Amino acid sequence: MGAKKTLKKKIKSLKAQVKQAAQSAPAKASLVSPLAPAQFPDLPAIRGLRLSTAAAGVRYKGRTDVMLAVLDPGSVVAGTFTRSATRAASVLDAQSKITRDSAEGAAFLVNSGNANAFTGAAGVASVTALCAALSQKLGLPAARIFTSSTGVIGEALPHDRIVAVLDELGSGLSAAALPDAARAIMTTDTFPKGASAKVDIDGQPVTIAGVAKGSGMIAPDMATMLVYIFTDAKITRSALQSMVSRQTDRSFNCITVDSDTSTSDMVLVAATAQADMPVIEDTTSDAAQIFNDALGAVMLDLAHQVVRDGEGATKFVEVAVSGARSDADARKVAMAIANSPLVKTAIAGEDPNWGRIVMAVGKSGAEADRDRLSIRFGPHLVASQGQVAPSYAEQVGAEYMRQQELVIGVDLRLGVGAATVWTCDLTHRYIDINTDYRS
Amino acid sequence: MGAKKTLKKKIKSLKAQVKQAAQSAPAKASLVSPLAPAQFPDLPAIRGLRLSTAAAGVRYKGRTDVMLAVLDPGSVVAGTFTRSATRAASVLDAQSKITRDSAEGAAFLVNSGNANAFTGAAGVASVTALCAALSQKLGLPAARIFTSSTGVIGEALPHDRIVAVLDELGSGLSAAALPDAARAIMTTDTFPKGASAKVDIDGQPVTIAGVAKGSGMIAPDMATMLVYIFTDAKITRSALQSMVSRQTDRSFNCITVDSDTSTSDMVLVAATAQADMPVIEDTTSDAAQIFNDALGAVMLDLAHQVVRDGEGATKFVEVAVSGARSDADARKVAMAIANSPLVKTAIAGEDPNWGRIVMAVGKSGAEADRDRLSIRFGPHLVASQGQVAPSYAEQVGAEYMRQQELVIGVDLRLGVGAATVWTCDLTHRYIDINTDYRS
Repeated sequence: MGAKKTLKKKIKSLKAQVKQAAQSAPAKASLVSPLAPAQFPDLPAIRGLRLSTAAAGVRYKGRTDVMLAVLDPGSVVAGTFTRSATRAASVLDAQSKITRDSAEGAAFLVNSGNANAFTGAAGVASVTALCAALSQKLGLPAARIFTSSTGVIGEALPHDRIVAVLDELGSGLSAAALPDAARAIMTTDTFPKGASAKVDIDGQPVTIAGVAKGSGMIAPDMATMLVYIFTDAKITRSALQSMVSRQTDRSFNCITVDSDTSTSDMVLVAATAQADMPVIEDTTSDAAQIFNDALGAVMLDLAHQVVRDGEGATKFVEVAVSGARSDADARKVAMAIANSPLVKTAIAGEDPNWGRIVMAVGKSGAEADRDRLSIRFGPHLVASQGQVAPSYAEQVGAEYMRQQELVIGVDLRLGVGAATVWTCDLTHRYIDINTDYRS
Repeated sequence: MGAKKTLKKKIKSLKAQVKQAAQSAPAKASLVSPLAPAQFPDLPAIRGLRLSTAAAGVRYKGRTDVMLAVLDPGSVVAGTFTRSATRAASVLDAQSKITRDSAEGAAFLVNSGNANAFTGAAGVASVTALCAALSQKLGLPAARIFTSSTGVIGEALPHDRIVAVLDELGSGLSAAALPDAARAIMTTDTFPKGASAKVDIDGQPVTIAGVAKGSGMIAPDMATMLVYIFTDAKITRSALQSMVSRQTDRSFNCITVDSDTSTSDMVLVAATAQADMPVIEDTTSDAAQIFNDALGAVMLDLAHQVVRDGEGATKFVEVAVSGARSDADARKVAMAIANSPLVKTAIAGEDPNWGRIVMAVGKSGAEADRDRLSIRFGPHLVASQGQVAPSYAEQVGAEYMRQQELVIGVDLRLGVGAATVWTCDLTHRYIDINTDYRS
């Protein structure tokens, strides 16, 4: 009995230890971002587009890591690219091809697992080899083949593994494979990202559908992730390019997860011209505006999804700045807030620490007058005229910060410049993901 | 026996659970930064300087939170200040006084716990009240009284609590209280920071001693912390000011913890003129150069200590960039690396992830040629001419990253521009500290 009692006592003590240790352990990271959309959207097929995916084992065995999109003859392609001075070979290659008009078909070949960035002459050789092999397979000129790679930087791309699955990719092409494509291009993403829109132009349905990947190394300055958008619209290359450039500035260039800019990423938009409509040749006609708005909505939706999958994100944050001396100044302030580690950790801690917003405004480099500045958390006026608002109660701010979606409003009261950007909070999970050896 | 066996089995399982839970729990945060110097240095007394400290209860009861430094008549004061557009009232006040020549004494009054920043007219009134009260107490003009406040932003400073301890401060003045002063100005600092130098000028000993506080919200762009340095040197205000400005650019403006810039911080340097030496009137004489070098060494020492106390820091990192088109470009690259969350988390994870260095170079905005770039970890050449160096073995990099003090070298091979900055890693502890409600 004595021994049994001792053992029972020991069990009790051990149970207490288990409980205590469990409490001090970090909460088990959820596999999918809490900010993910409830489900992957129904993506419509795009006439003139077929896709397929394969598991080439670029970095990991047994996961789909290559996608191929093949566009019918008559398609036009537009794109935007990272402004990094250390751009990857595939980015430079795609940039050199994007301004070329062609009546031929086109193809996008994308791999995850290896970014083929900072790989010197070998990197260029990989791009050339992939384009040559796919060109032969599809009977397309290499100048119409756009490759992208995402993943680890600085390691040679084992492009032969991708060449080895080109037959499989070619025979598996299907109009319905866009959701599979969204999954094949994921790296640290916790959910696949897709968005679509349908509009009527001259009474005819026109469809836009796209996929994106990206969750870390996200900051403005051109397309800082991989995005592929397809439409059956009839539109000239130059009209499409000017819409894509403008909409990139309002979407992908207005998001930031960690202020870090990728070496590899791009937005490609292809229009197959298979909708039964007159060709859009400018950006000002009614048809152009309808299409441009729909394209912008798809791009913004995808951009928001990238922020919602920000590494470790638990809050989706809109930063809206108004009253700046210029739009550029407003953007500086918005980005200074959205990139501030102190602001982002306060948000993670649900702390209505508006002092850190003041700090971020101050360091932004934009013109600001401390004594005119006002700050809002959602609908709540927190500070005005350089000090806490008389109507503000700390408890109201604290309550507001518990929401998953937050709006931080800053009015500089100096002019009419405005900008809105989107970001997420900075949490332990971000550190977990990025301190992992060669994540 | 069956029951006993069951219990023993249960104990075994519980022990395994305890072990597993303990492994997944974060390491208990140490109270003092692992990068702290072994001990606080012996700080020499400075002739013409007396200090005292008190516990005014500005924010917390029972901890020393105010320091007073009183300088004899004949002292000159120089300083550098945060460039934040949302500077605190005490910063603006000190800036307005710093260019004034005076034969009178001077005083520094500093509190921790509340930054008196973004407090509007009340903030200005607090500074005025403190200066007036101390002016009366010490018989000094208010124009010779410099105040600083550090701590929470956006809350009114209860300056009456500080006024209430002025008697105590005045009667406690001592030449030996510099170490106490270092402690009184701490906020989230984990160790007090002090440094000193002694030089001979014309055969006479000249002494410099200073203290600093700062651990979060540290980024370049002028003095982003509180630093007070005292010397008995005889030097004109303008010569001292030009040395302080130049040395600030090489020390406090070359460190970054989290890229966030404080609204409140400043470097003040006072020279009491009590050393038996000719007055230094320029920056080029032998005496000026000896003094300037010693002042620079004290400032750099204090700047490094601030990085060593970076919130959550476990690694002290020097980023040395050479071969840039200009010094300004080199600085852009160095700061892009030092501020990159992805670089800083890789360092925390002891991951020799040089791909993230390439990324940071690319996003810096400085001119860079991917295919000329070389990267070193300490003495080890990691990458050259745009790809991994043939001589580099991953294991060597991994081994190097385990060190507590790291040097990241980047050679752009474009010109002769160079810059060196210092930073720390980004760890869970940074998140812990800054997600704490109103830390």
